[in-house]
Amino acid sequence: MSIKRLGRQTIKFGTPPSVIGQGNVVGKKEGEGPLKSSFDAIVTDSLFGQKTWEKAESEMQKQALATAMQKAGVIPSQLHYIFGGDLLNQCIATSYHLKNIGIPFFGLYGACSTMAESIALAAMSIDGGFATHAAALTSSHYSTAERQYRSPLSYGSQRAPTAQWTATAAGAVILAESDSPPYITIHSTGRIVDMEIKDANNMGAAMAPAAYDTLTAFFGETKTVPADFDLILTGDLGEVGASIVTSLFSLDGVDIKPNYNDCGLMLYDCKKQDVHAGGSGCGCSASVFTGEILNGMRAGKWNRVLFGATGALHSPTALQQGGGIPGICHVIAVENFKES
Amino acid sequence: MSIKRLGRQTIKFGTPPSVIGQGNVVGKKEGEGPLKSSFDAIVTDSLFGQKTWEKAESEMQKQALATAMQKAGVIPSQLHYIFGGDLLNQCIATSYHLKNIGIPFFGLYGACSTMAESIALAAMSIDGGFATHAAALTSSHYSTAERQYRSPLSYGSQRAPTAQWTATAAGAVILAESDSPPYITIHSTGRIVDMEIKDANNMGAAMAPAAYDTLTAFFGETKTVPADFDLILTGDLGEVGASIVTSLFSLDGVDIKPNYNDCGLMLYDCKKQDVHAGGSGCGCSASVFTGEILNGMRAGKWNRVLFGATGALHSPTALQQGGGIPGICHVIAVENFKES
Repeated sequence: MSIKRLGRQTIKFGTPPSVIGQGNVVGKKEGEGPLKSSFDAIVTDSLFGQKTWEKAESEMQKQALATAMQKAGVIPSQLHYIFGGDLLNQCIATSYHLKNIGIPFFGLYGACSTMAESIALAAMSIDGGFATHAAALTSSHYSTAERQYRSPLSYGSQRAPTAQWTATAAGAVILAESDSPPYITIHSTGRIVDMEIKDANNMGAAMAPAAYDTLTAFFGETKTVPADFDLILTGDLGEVGASIVTSLFSLDGVDIKPNYNDCGLMLYDCKKQDVHAGGSGCGCSASVFTGEILNGMRAGKWNRVLFGATGALHSPTALQQGGGIPGICHVIAVENFKES
Repeated sequence: MSIKRLGRQTIKFGTPPSVIGQGNVVGKKEGEGPLKSSFDAIVTDSLFGQKTWEKAESEMQKQALATAMQKAGVIPSQLHYIFGGDLLNQCIATSYHLKNIGIPFFGLYGACSTMAESIALAAMSIDGGFATHAAALTSSHYSTAERQYRSPLSYGSQRAPTAQWTATAAGAVILAESDSPPYITIHSTGRIVDMEIKDANNMGAAMAPAAYDTLTAFFGETKTVPADFDLILTGDLGEVGASIVTSLFSLDGVDIKPNYNDCGLMLYDCKKQDVHAGGSGCGCSASVFTGEILNGMRAGKWNRVLFGATGALHSPTALQQGGGIPGICHVIAVENFKES
């Protein structure tokens, strides 16, 4: 078989899979932000009817998947694979709601890059001939993430200006071969980039070099330029990271600003909603992508979108041992037209 | 494209990728066990020359990958993908040694099922036409795992009879299309099976139902019986889990015992080495598979092997919240002959 490969990091799908359905669920704060009309469900109870925040996050992800399946018109027995993960240790938000429902599952850990990582692998499973339908999903929850990565909310720690607000949100997509747009056309796989950022309150700086690395590979290997896309979207770099990534491109003489945005800057009204440098968490890019972006593409607002979800592989243990926070960014191209 | 699918959980590779190289590194205790002659390196320093056990585990995995690449005769720039993960939070053993070396990386979390999960996805990436060479790798370390999942070693907690010994070991394989055996021919993807086992010292019981689930799917969907294989190997069920899985098959009137074994029973001399119910950890199945099993297949000792790595998705947080320990088992068939 000929290799569907454009370069070191980039593959081009032979038959680009379609996004045949998507779903998301967000919390109260996210539902008060500028994208509120794009969400399938806004839930004001941060416990989501559960007894713990971890269970709440799992429930949120379960509902996002159910919504995506409903919109796609598929039932669990049609799903050949679920690719998913989340920020919690052992990815329990994902695996605990998939107990005993009988869908083959590949567990992933890509921190906040998980939405793009899972879509890429789901698309590969379909284009590779292993599945007809596959799901990609992820989530995050402000209260579970703060407790695990920084300090429990009840400690009342003061947030740094560079800190981002972990989104309470979940998103899921269902992919299948179909003649309906949008299509997942191209994928550039991320590499681990570590600039030795050691500040647990500055995820944007840790992830931005990885975003620059994978996006640069994408443009070079596809022989495209930023202006070829209607929207270039990073996952959750926030104000600090977005500023770094645009600056890094400027050093190459490339201006990505005209059609660049970041999910962490879109999800909240950063000033009014007191989120400091912006949104973050797997659920940030997942809910923006499955809401505003896919809705916009279906409405023809954008036809060619680059989605680069960015992950900070932040380990409290590694930080305590003097290590840095490596970053990774997986990029997918989503387009309303596929080459004939 | 026709779907390479035999049933709900099972795919059959169109052009089965070969294992063109493998490598492993183990610690002192593992190097004193019955499989000592099958390891590429036995390191008696549990810190592996590093300052922390986490860094030691990462270093061990780095060396296993280097050995596998050397045996395969490939250099980093030829590797299109690395699929890997480990037991540590944020999978730092894997991601930290892959910093800045430039290989596209898909991070996985499958607990001790990671060796089979990563091989399955690496094989899919090659057979699907996305890569010529891909690596699969994982590791575990007794001291990092005990600290994270149970209690720090210095507390001197007493081990329960059902407890397994987390292997200090790492393993890696390199896959590529080739005419040299062994080949990865068939894969059954695991589903999450939760029998509500809540004992952090009984991983075998938590994982055994998942092993039974995926192996049953494999036999049913490939229309094979246990006797068709020279060896049926589970990941790290140990004495308790192995006894459960053989009993579950007995209830179906199927006797898998004649050609069944478990990596957790093979790695140590359970009685003499004081490991209680056997070995466990991602590195257990990884080192047994990349040592004894692949060496044995290359020597013609076995021609058809089923390898079902089993993962206990054990979350200390979930246990504290009253949850169980779900299990998952991914199965791959490894054969010395491929259908013409």
